[in-house]
Amino acid sequence: MKVGFIGLGIMGKPMAGHLIKNGYETYLFDLNTKAVQELAELGGNACESNKEIAEICDVIFTMLPAGKHVKQVLFSDDGVAKNGKPNTIIIDMSSVSPEESKSFANDLYEYNMAFIDAPVSGGEPMAIEGKLSIMAGGAEDDFNRVLPLLKTMGSNVVHVGEVGTGSAAKLANQIIVSIHLAALSEAAVFASKSGIDLNKLYQAISGGLAGSAVMEAKMPKIIDRDFEPGGRIEINFKDLGNVQSSANAIGVPLPITNLVKEVFGSEVANGNATKDHSYIINFFERMANHQIPKGGK
Amino acid sequence: MKVGFIGLGIMGKPMAGHLIKNGYETYLFDLNTKAVQELAELGGNACESNKEIAEICDVIFTMLPAGKHVKQVLFSDDGVAKNGKPNTIIIDMSSVSPEESKSFANDLYEYNMAFIDAPVSGGEPMAIEGKLSIMAGGAEDDFNRVLPLLKTMGSNVVHVGEVGTGSAAKLANQIIVSIHLAALSEAAVFASKSGIDLNKLYQAISGGLAGSAVMEAKMPKIIDRDFEPGGRIEINFKDLGNVQSSANAIGVPLPITNLVKEVFGSEVANGNATKDHSYIINFFERMANHQIPKGGK
Repeated sequence: MKVGFIGLGIMGKPMAGHLIKNGYETYLFDLNTKAVQELAELGGNACESNKEIAEICDVIFTMLPAGKHVKQVLFSDDGVAKNGKPNTIIIDMSSVSPEESKSFANDLYEYNMAFIDAPVSGGEPMAIEGKLSIMAGGAEDDFNRVLPLLKTMGSNVVHVGEVGTGSAAKLANQIIVSIHLAALSEAAVFASKSGIDLNKLYQAISGGLAGSAVMEAKMPKIIDRDFEPGGRIEINFKDLGNVQSSANAIGVPLPITNLVKEVFGSEVANGNATKDHSYIINFFERMANHQIPKGGK
Repeated sequence: MKVGFIGLGIMGKPMAGHLIKNGYETYLFDLNTKAVQELAELGGNACESNKEIAEICDVIFTMLPAGKHVKQVLFSDDGVAKNGKPNTIIIDMSSVSPEESKSFANDLYEYNMAFIDAPVSGGEPMAIEGKLSIMAGGAEDDFNRVLPLLKTMGSNVVHVGEVGTGSAAKLANQIIVSIHLAALSEAAVFASKSGIDLNKLYQAISGGLAGSAVMEAKMPKIIDRDFEPGGRIEINFKDLGNVQSSANAIGVPLPITNLVKEVFGSEVANGNATKDHSYIINFFERMANHQIPKGGK
């Protein structure tokens, strides 16, 4: 089995690395030739175009910034669909909307190719460790064929349901993560302006019903005023845009999510797109005219 | 040391029980004489009024539904302030606003009495087990004097800061819990109407950055359609009212919290005040015209 990987960014590069390290014959393409070269040194095969990957490979992974890039890679004249072999399985691990995933699957069906949407959560650290959560949508047979490959990258690989459900599960994940970031921000600004040392607040509430992975990961960053990403504000903003369009398409009003999306949008507008997503606390600090002191008190 | 306990409801009764079981000479009053009698059988001393408690005790706990009840117990003519001994310490474990706590402390100071606001989280199960989280505001000396008593009821007792900070920390806790309930609801309705089995969603995302104590506690209730309380919708609604008035007082806009408060308010208006607080999912289900099937799929 020849495995292709297109999109070797912060996430894709370590993910492709796990395929190589696990002995899969892996073919690589990215516009960033440096990333391709580094993985070639691990034992991967450098390719010079999507077309070359398509002509060679039986399974092709894509890990790209947004749906429009996936569409381009799959369906342009020198893309995967028009140049690939029948029965190729495409596994898109990008975060796109379920409607985009279904449309890719339908269009690939015309080329006799199978499609799985398999977005991830866990970010760069888990990508490097091969411990991502992977939520996959697609036919069960196709999923079972590629499961060993997914397991090189993820410690929690779940077949959620048919095509599109992987993307929908990822969006549900992003709804929760984004709202939790806003909840932590409102609580932290309220507590700090009430005169509370945030270290004490953390000690008092993190073990109870208010506890969360977001609090564990981000309260220390808020206390230290360390907003190096991690997950970037622009990524949450993009994902919540996908949530909004998908929710509109299926008829699910999401008033809290959409309000939180505007918060992320405001931080993008204020030049903070590439800061850690916990930096939406800046929005609430500005509103309250109160910046949490470094150190938390 | 003679210890009084006023307010023996779902929370107060087991909390007072821990004082008795730990050998403290405990004096009890509640309008519900049955609760008083049950605790007297454990070794407590039944009293017939707040006045009697005030005349006897050196330390007095209050655990009451809202600030207006605390005010009544403390400051009415037959209340604690006018009938108690100088140097009495009052520990209010009710959930009230920080402004109410500060006002109680100021007024008790006129009577030469000390005040600690020490609200709790963890609900009835943790109250019964003596494993509450207790967040206390007050002078350090006063806190240290009553810490052994608090430790009979709580496994995580934190001195947050001066008077009012205990109540503010509890409200920060409620901000997070309430918003997390809304986040879980929006994600669950979105995922379910997208065709996802919620058991699969839970499996895919609960171990990652979306994970939370609310998801662990409430996703099974949502899947089972089990909305027996637990925490009641009316309690969150009351607490978010306190959040709103306190945040207005100190100048902290809380757009997400206040929107979520309206969700709880809608469920109160629709006759669901005493259902488990996870039942706010009903609000989002009605909006989406989609009820999550029992069993999750």
